[in-house]
Amino acid sequence: MTFRAPVRDLAFALKTVGHSALMAQAFPDLDEDTVLAVLEAAGAFTESELAPLNRKGDTEGAKYANGKVTAAPGFAAAYQAFVAGGWNALSSDPEYGGQGLTGALGLAVFEMVHASNMAFGLCPMLTQGAIEALALHGTERQKRLVLPKLVSGEWTGTMNLTEPQAGSDLAAVATRAEPDGKGGYRLHGQKIYITWGDHDAADNICHLVLARLPDAPPGVKGISLFLATKRLVDDAGNLGDPNDLRAGSIEHKLGIHGSPTCVMLFEGAQAELVGELNNGIAHMFVMMNAARLQVGVQGVAIAERAFQQALAFAQERKQGRAAWAPDGAIYGHPDVRRSLLLMKAKIEAARAICLSTGVLNDVARLAVDEAARAVAKARAELFTPIAKAWSTDIGVEVASMGVQIHGGMGFIEETGAAQHYRDARIAPIYEGTNGIQAIDLVGRKAPMENGAVVDALAAEMHETANALSGTPGLETVGARLEAGVAALERATDWILANKGPNALSGATPYLKLAGDVVGGWMLGLQALALVGATDDWSASKAALARVYSAQILAQAPGLAEGVMEGAGDYEAVSAHALGG
Amino acid sequence: MTFRAPVRDLAFALKTVGHSALMAQAFPDLDEDTVLAVLEAAGAFTESELAPLNRKGDTEGAKYANGKVTAAPGFAAAYQAFVAGGWNALSSDPEYGGQGLTGALGLAVFEMVHASNMAFGLCPMLTQGAIEALALHGTERQKRLVLPKLVSGEWTGTMNLTEPQAGSDLAAVATRAEPDGKGGYRLHGQKIYITWGDHDAADNICHLVLARLPDAPPGVKGISLFLATKRLVDDAGNLGDPNDLRAGSIEHKLGIHGSPTCVMLFEGAQAELVGELNNGIAHMFVMMNAARLQVGVQGVAIAERAFQQALAFAQERKQGRAAWAPDGAIYGHPDVRRSLLLMKAKIEAARAICLSTGVLNDVARLAVDEAARAVAKARAELFTPIAKAWSTDIGVEVASMGVQIHGGMGFIEETGAAQHYRDARIAPIYEGTNGIQAIDLVGRKAPMENGAVVDALAAEMHETANALSGTPGLETVGARLEAGVAALERATDWILANKGPNALSGATPYLKLAGDVVGGWMLGLQALALVGATDDWSASKAALARVYSAQILAQAPGLAEGVMEGAGDYEAVSAHALGG
Repeated sequence: MTFRAPVRDLAFALKTVGHSALMAQAFPDLDEDTVLAVLEAAGAFTESELAPLNRKGDTEGAKYANGKVTAAPGFAAAYQAFVAGGWNALSSDPEYGGQGLTGALGLAVFEMVHASNMAFGLCPMLTQGAIEALALHGTERQKRLVLPKLVSGEWTGTMNLTEPQAGSDLAAVATRAEPDGKGGYRLHGQKIYITWGDHDAADNICHLVLARLPDAPPGVKGISLFLATKRLVDDAGNLGDPNDLRAGSIEHKLGIHGSPTCVMLFEGAQAELVGELNNGIAHMFVMMNAARLQVGVQGVAIAERAFQQALAFAQERKQGRAAWAPDGAIYGHPDVRRSLLLMKAKIEAARAICLSTGVLNDVARLAVDEAARAVAKARAELFTPIAKAWSTDIGVEVASMGVQIHGGMGFIEETGAAQHYRDARIAPIYEGTNGIQAIDLVGRKAPMENGAVVDALAAEMHETANALSGTPGLETVGARLEAGVAALERATDWILANKGPNALSGATPYLKLAGDVVGGWMLGLQALALVGATDDWSASKAALARVYSAQILAQAPGLAEGVMEGAGDYEAVSAHALGG
Repeated sequence: MTFRAPVRDLAFALKTVGHSALMAQAFPDLDEDTVLAVLEAAGAFTESELAPLNRKGDTEGAKYANGKVTAAPGFAAAYQAFVAGGWNALSSDPEYGGQGLTGALGLAVFEMVHASNMAFGLCPMLTQGAIEALALHGTERQKRLVLPKLVSGEWTGTMNLTEPQAGSDLAAVATRAEPDGKGGYRLHGQKIYITWGDHDAADNICHLVLARLPDAPPGVKGISLFLATKRLVDDAGNLGDPNDLRAGSIEHKLGIHGSPTCVMLFEGAQAELVGELNNGIAHMFVMMNAARLQVGVQGVAIAERAFQQALAFAQERKQGRAAWAPDGAIYGHPDVRRSLLLMKAKIEAARAICLSTGVLNDVARLAVDEAARAVAKARAELFTPIAKAWSTDIGVEVASMGVQIHGGMGFIEETGAAQHYRDARIAPIYEGTNGIQAIDLVGRKAPMENGAVVDALAAEMHETANALSGTPGLETVGARLEAGVAALERATDWILANKGPNALSGATPYLKLAGDVVGGWMLGLQALALVGATDDWSASKAALARVYSAQILAQAPGLAEGVMEGAGDYEAVSAHALGG
């Protein structure tokens, strides 16, 4: 199955979430034609260089032997081509060698990278996080010697957070950082689940590591962020001896076999502090937020790939009398087509949410107007957990629907549909589980400014609902969006009024409700943007908005009831009563 | 992770779906104590003999070499123990050596078999289908020589339906049956996806094969059902030479690796007709309906296993400050507990639907009153596609939620949660995809007797809703069930009024709606049955009914809108517009 870069959909999605306005204000050298050219070139690269390696990455995977990790077959060469093509440096600051494009465009490119080969995409994705952390909090030396190498992609980056006892709860991090008496530190400890923690695809690997000093306060306020490179770097930037750190093993995982997930052993590794002592968690969140949005994009990407494969299969496979296909292709069966359109509608909604968050991050960083920056920053913070969790849940759902469309062949590994179902499953877990995202949403994000951030969003969505209700062919979308926004407002009021276990037990349905409604809004905006156009692609966008409104938005009022249930029953039931 | 047979839940579920009344009427020798004793003994067997093999079945799987299949390590010995324990013969007719228990009790036992080891359970499950087909349509010779061996389990059975071009569309079956001039036939052709098509766990394998005579009419009306045994059987029942059939290969699958999925090659195999010439599809549906219900039970089973593992993990794993657990066990986190209770509520609802269908099948077969038999038969027919599709979708959902509760460890194969996620994925596909079930529901089942079968069900559900609404603590369950039943009635009216593509494009949401509402009804009945009981297990059943009503039933009215959307948008969108 070949991958076809969804360039037209991506360019259109960018436009409808404010990318043009962003460019006009902050990127005078960037125009729509350039955006399209970048997307097309990136699309061609992912189609020809990355997609063909995806299956081999799955079947052969990365290998661990004698303390070293070898990337999956072809991955190292593809990575070199990726770096040589300048794809790693797209959105980075030109000061460090980046191309200075918008972060949103970088995200769109990364969607294609992940769709073509998610296991591969993780390597530059992690590097991206390291770039953002060092650009914001790095020392002069780190910015001079390390950052440009990360921006170019000659070196790669990792995030070393998790330890066996410290997963969602980073307060439990135990890796020690001992001052070496020369201004540096020595790290001792074990990290797990370190994505691309070791490999042979680049000259050096820059590990950003959470650890605590011997005299640090307990809990999250005693954790600092360190940089430890696989090979030491002298003051001229030359590579020296190997550092005292190594991969201890790689995990045997359900999916993304092409991405080595390492146990990393720090055995007195030389390290430098990044940012302030004991403020590592805050610095880490810079990486983490970027990574969360990227993981959301992975959800979209794997869904897109699964959708493409299912669509191609449905056009080829003939079974029975299909109402809408004279040749009997199962694409002509109403139930199959319903499934495909729902997959596509979910993908477009999730894509728009992720790219919108990307644009908001750009505006928050670059808008001239300070108030506009603040507004964008708040909404980006609100959207980030939704982009991560809602999109990755959709990745799993759509990959599962893709398997289903294949019938029996979907369960056979050679078909490839099953790989997407396996690969997709990690995205709701890593970079903060979707449960953690939901808790972040109800605990920190929805309550921002006393709910005013959600209120402002709701007001905009009401406006769109009005516009839809007045547009022939989109009236039902408008009515259902209106009802959905009202349901979200009720649920938000309840969440703000109910702290603690009540709100926490409603967190997951609240996040789903928010994603469902915001996704419906995005599809409504897309349909409005194409009113009057009569080509089949434009008509399909209106159809997708209607399908989504009937199949998903219509359930928003019911979902809100689930949010507002309260914790009583959950609190009361013992594990014993459930058979535990 | 050990498996704990959910004996108490199963016994209770049986009671609330009319098993006691069934026993009183048609099984005078069977009482509640015996039921419990059977469940306990079966539970002990599955816990000690089958569950420990489940992981090895996954990691090592069945093997193919030199035209022969070897069962996964330990499976053949476990199968011998299964047969020796009499577990294969539970519900079969004593005339053929069965124990004559209710089919519903047999299903409950099979739930534990599948939960402990789904790949293993497929072997006796397929035998069960062959038993039912031969008991109804077999010749005297088949009933004398073959049926008792299948009932005891000494020989196993298979269903040979699918061919590369004939999956959901059996009209395309091309395997040839040529008369041998001696009253028998010779089969020529290739079948695929044949579960336990070859193995070394039993002395003989009885293949029930769809094929067509050279002069048969085209389409489904030219297909006949044949019996071809792996080894020939003489008139005294002795095993003779190998037949001219063999496994050509086994598939490399996403899950159920312990179940060999064979390509079967019929190379002039000797075969006997089963039932009438050219009526094979109808005879096959006897097997198929039994298998569909069993597959629904597999959905429940894998969900139960995944739930147990997640619950055990949540009690052990400590992360952060848990609102409801002083020791920090993640079972004390509201979001985790919500997830676990929702898993459990779905399991209990699906279990009740499957066991209810089992009881209805028994009543349809055995009730003294002819009218009662007819009523039960119609409802069993209505329930069968729901039991199959809704329960297996829940199997996938719950297995996925189980992975999620494990966090990063869920993605590591050694943990075992991922196996359930992989194993569960086949159940929505085989024995008629869930799309086919939905089409069966809207096309044949809901329209039975002009909708009167659904009407009668709705009337009963309204009664239960009334009872719930008048019961302290269950009022909200009653109100939501009432609204859910009304939504199902609206959707049913629409389905009956809209044939063709409109109804077909609403089929999948209609089935989900029906399952959601009937499942809510079942949980409501369970809660009503325990009113007044104060132990924590009884209290948990009321809590599960409330949780389910808030999280699932509340969405029924919105889901009904999705059913009644119509086919317009689906019909209009070309594959090209979607990027195909």
